[in-house]
Formats: sequence, structure tokens, C-alpha cells
Amino acid sequence: MPDSNILSVYSNKRVLITGGLGFLGSSLAHALVARGADVALLDNLAPLYGGNEFNIDTIKDQVTVTIGDIRDSGLLHKVILDCDFIFNFAAQVSHSDSATMPFEDLDINARGQLMILEACRLYNPHAKIIFPSSRLVFGRIQHTPVTEEHPTHPLGLYGVHKLTAEKYYQLYHHLYGMRTVVLRLTNPYGPRQQIKHSKYSIPGWFMRLAMEGKEISIFGEGEQKRDYIYVDDVVQSFLLVGALDITDGKVYNCGYGSSVAFKDMVTALITIVGSGNVRFVPWPSHYEKEETGSFEVDTSLLRRDTQWVPAVSLKEGLQRMCQYYIEYKNHYLFPNL
Amino acid sequence: MPDSNILSVYSNKRVLITGGLGFLGSSLAHALVARGADVALLDNLAPLYGGNEFNIDTIKDQVTVTIGDIRDSGLLHKVILDCDFIFNFAAQVSHSDSATMPFEDLDINARGQLMILEACRLYNPHAKIIFPSSRLVFGRIQHTPVTEEHPTHPLGLYGVHKLTAEKYYQLYHHLYGMRTVVLRLTNPYGPRQQIKHSKYSIPGWFMRLAMEGKEISIFGEGEQKRDYIYVDDVVQSFLLVGALDITDGKVYNCGYGSSVAFKDMVTALITIVGSGNVRFVPWPSHYEKEETGSFEVDTSLLRRDTQWVPAVSLKEGLQRMCQYYIEYKNHYLFPNL
Repeated sequence: MPDSNILSVYSNKRVLITGGLGFLGSSLAHALVARGADVALLDNLAPLYGGNEFNIDTIKDQVTVTIGDIRDSGLLHKVILDCDFIFNFAAQVSHSDSATMPFEDLDINARGQLMILEACRLYNPHAKIIFPSSRLVFGRIQHTPVTEEHPTHPLGLYGVHKLTAEKYYQLYHHLYGMRTVVLRLTNPYGPRQQIKHSKYSIPGWFMRLAMEGKEISIFGEGEQKRDYIYVDDVVQSFLLVGALDITDGKVYNCGYGSSVAFKDMVTALITIVGSGNVRFVPWPSHYEKEETGSFEVDTSLLRRDTQWVPAVSLKEGLQRMCQYYIEYKNHYLFPNL
Repeated sequence: MPDSNILSVYSNKRVLITGGLGFLGSSLAHALVARGADVALLDNLAPLYGGNEFNIDTIKDQVTVTIGDIRDSGLLHKVILDCDFIFNFAAQVSHSDSATMPFEDLDINARGQLMILEACRLYNPHAKIIFPSSRLVFGRIQHTPVTEEHPTHPLGLYGVHKLTAEKYYQLYHHLYGMRTVVLRLTNPYGPRQQIKHSKYSIPGWFMRLAMEGKEISIFGEGEQKRDYIYVDDVVQSFLLVGALDITDGKVYNCGYGSSVAFKDMVTALITIVGSGNVRFVPWPSHYEKEETGSFEVDTSLLRRDTQWVPAVSLKEGLQRMCQYYIEYKNHYLFPNL
């Protein structure tokens, strides 16, 4: 693991986290507060997504929270001023909803990010700006392991607009010298993940079903492989790419680096929870068109540039997640969409 | 050249051309009227761009013209209904303006195209929809000749949003079976090109300068190579990809297939016009960041699938263009931005 001195850079620095009440944003906030950063959170608490004030319950007196939208240009101008670091988790995060709300997805995930970059270009050009992208920019997997150079032909608008935003981040670095970096996440999971509905964050939703002794549907044989990455490892990767100058202008894959079959993840989850059961169902036709195929990620670029190493196995991560929801599940059930 | 019967498909078919009063849109309209199509044109006549009612002066009684914007959803719904073919030339067409009007570029070139595709998905899913993209999606050229698989890292928002729209077109084919096709154009030139200002369509602007006996500035040594493709060849490529089912869902390069140094293009132009002169000036710094490097395009995929072959050399094309502006230049000078 890298020298912990690298992360001392955050001490007393001003950090903005958009989407700061959500799963990843709030988890990063905890880590930054622990490192002495002056943390501000912006979140619109949109009902579909994972924004949840309970996520920051234990640090609420140590952070500043603004309830608002990145697309509110007056507010945006105010919150970005004087920030040293800006982590942009505010997003439309449901792949499936991007098909039913195409313009909303464009507006939040492309225009919203362009607004942040333009605001920074004009009013805070020296901030380091970090963008979480997604493995869904790749589309149908043509060869594994998937490096950053794998072709990008997204199978949904969510992936298209994530790709558009990636291009913005790279462009603003190239044209204006701004300090941007992109992390393409695989399948993050862990405590504070929303468990209200099944539209995204599948491990969270399945854990809820299992805890309630319900049936979990698996499409097809469940053989498709996914790379599940525990939230603490994701947070560590964001801290590192934010702290290091070598990452400026780059795009990195971020994942555990080894994959498991979907059905094996579900079996592990049910075993850990101790309830729930599995039913195999046929693929709905539209899902097959959107299925990427098995995914194995190559994270050697991130490891080389930051010495980041993921530390939490799937079993260990699911155990920690299960403990969390045994204790706090009630804070994650409403609004139950 | 391909069997002309292929293009008889347009006879009595309903064709919509957005941006239909511009350079390429109006030129295509002439070709389609000649083939007996029922042609409707939509154009917002935005002052910066090339929309010009004189472009259709000789066919104005044979086409339907609507002055309006693709982003007017009520109007869009009306004009796309029952069309067999939709050619989408409506666009923000200035690379340099995309940096100064980032949200306008996003709104027209990405959201506008998404609106067209969504409207067609809902109300006209069987139309063939053709999208002109740009060589600027490639960004800095990493190897020549540039095939369709060349990496796409645009050096400006214009290229980013063209790439986004390409992804929309491919996605709507993949997910919904819609009949879409993308043509990535190199540097088109010819009669009906706007000559009001220097923000895009450089051959047109330089021809005007030469005809007015003025000085033409060339950055650096003028050695950077470009692929200039005459408008009639471009029109032929659009007719072919529109007519053939094999092109559904695909992305094609479209260019002359051999490049000339920028200074040689200018020299040829000045020789043909018989006036004007050249001055070599240093690259402005921001131009170098946006310069793609020499460009040589590989059009073998388009040739293979459509038997398209470009027919007009640069010298011949510039001669025809010069003749046109000698006769009609006054129709292209206003509004003189």
C-alpha cells in the first residue's frame, strides 16, 4: 500500500463532494473527515437515488451540507469557490432509467458535469476534479481483461453520457490544463448503498431480499462474471487519484481485479445473510441486448500510478455489509419505491 | 460507380432534411428532387450558420420548407411523421464556437439529435435516419490512414458532441432496430458553402478572400494535410448509405481518400481564382492544442458496402466552386458577421 503521507494532503483542505449524501460520496466524506479535511457536501436528495442523511449521521457536525442540484448554476458557483478538491458523485445512476428518461440522463450526467467543469474553468481552475465513470462505457466486452483502451460502444444512454462526461474531463485538462481525473468503476458494493429498489446497486437490493427471506431472481444461468469492489477500496482509490499529480488528465479502471460469476456472488450473499433463496429465470429480451458479457478488469494502470491495492475480498465485504444492514436497515427502507 | 437503380428508391418517397437550407442539406435536396423524391426541409436559419434560402432558389417550388428548430418538440413530431428518410444536417457547425458556446453545442448537437431519435422511436420507427458526423471525433491522429476504428479522443466540444450523437445513432439501432447510419465527413467544400465568416468552411472563406484580392493567413508552414471532399461526392455518399440496408447501424468514413497540404490547397485556390495572396503566420497557441495533425482517411469500408467512389478532384472542385461564386457571390455575403 502507498505511503500514508500521500493522503495527508487532504488535511485542512477544502473538499466538495457532489452527491455527498449518497453511497460513495458519503463514504468518501467519512474518510476525508478522518483525515482532517474541511468537507462540504452537495446533494439534491432525489428520491430515486441513494442520497440519505443517515449516511453522514456520525459526522454531521463535522461537514457542511447543502441540499441542492449541480444544475443550479448560482448554487454551483457558490459551492465550488475556493475548493481544493471536487469529487463529483452527483449523477443519474440507473442504467435502466436512462432508457426511460433519456433527457434527464443527458441533463444530469452530461450537461451537469459540463456545468461543473465550466464553473471551475472560470472561477476555480486550480481545483483537482475527480469523476466516477463506469465500466458501462465499454459496452459489449470484446476481450478480457479489459484495459482502459478497450473500445467504448455503450449499450445504453447511461454509458453514452458517462463516456461524454469522460471526454469533457479529458478535454478540459488538455485545453485548459485543469487537473481532472476519471475512475471507471466496476460494481461497487458495501454499507450505505441504497436498498430501496432494484434499479441499480444490485448487491444492496439482493441483500435486502435475502434478509427478508425472499426469492432472488437470476437471469439465465447466472454465469456472467462481474467484478465486485468493496466501498472502502473504492474510497481509497478516489483519495489516491485525487492526491497525486501523476493522475492529472488520465482515465483509470478501478475494480477488484478478479471476477466472480453472478450466481456465485448471490450464493455467497445468501450464505452470509443466512436466509433468502434463488430462482433462475429466462433473460428478458431487452436485457440481453444490454448485457455486456463477462467482465474482467485490468487495473494495472491505477496500481502502477498510485500503488493502490484493493484489500477487501467479496466474502469479507459482504460480511461487513450484512453487519451494517442488520444494524441500520431501517434507515434505508424509505421511501420504498 | 454503383448501379443507378439503387437510387431510384427515392422516387416518390418522403424525405426530410433538417438543416435543409444549409450547404450540404440543400445540395442533397437538389439531388433528391432530381430523383423524384417528395422533399421537406427544416431549417432555423440561425445567423451564424449556412442556412440560405438562395440555396434552393431553383427548386423552391418543388420542396416544402419549414423555418424552425429541431429542438421544438411539437414541430419535430409533425415533420418526422411518415418520412421514409431523414437526413440530419441541422447542427452547430463551428468547432471554434463550441468552446465559447459549450452548452449551445451540447443542446443542438447532442440533445437535438437525441430528440430526433426519440421522436422517431415513438412515432416513426421505420424511417432510415442518416447522421453526418465529423473527422473531428478522432482528435489527435495517432496513425494514418485513419480507419473507423481509430481511437476517438476529440480535441474540442464539437467533436465530443458529434461522438455522443454517433453513439446515440448506433445505440438506437442496437436497442430498437432503428435504421440509422453515420457518415464521418472530412473537409467538404463546394458551391452553397457559407462564405460569411471564417469560423468554419475554410475553403469557402478563403475563396471569398481570394476573390476580393485579400490576404489569406496560413498557420505555421501550412504542411498539415487535409482531405477535401467535393459536395457532389458527399451528396452521392449520403444518397447511397440512405438507400442501402447494409449500412444500417454502421459508422463510415467519407472523404476523398487522398490528402493535400493546407498550403497547396490555398495555392490551388488562389491560382484558380486569379487573385489573393498568402501570408504565413505563427500558430496561435490554442490552435496547436486543437490541431489534429495531418489527416489521411481510409474510406474502404464505405467503398466496399456502397461502391461509392468520389469523382471530383480538388482542382476540378475548386474550379466549379469558383464559377459558382463568380455568378452568385452576392447571395452569400449577408448577414456579414
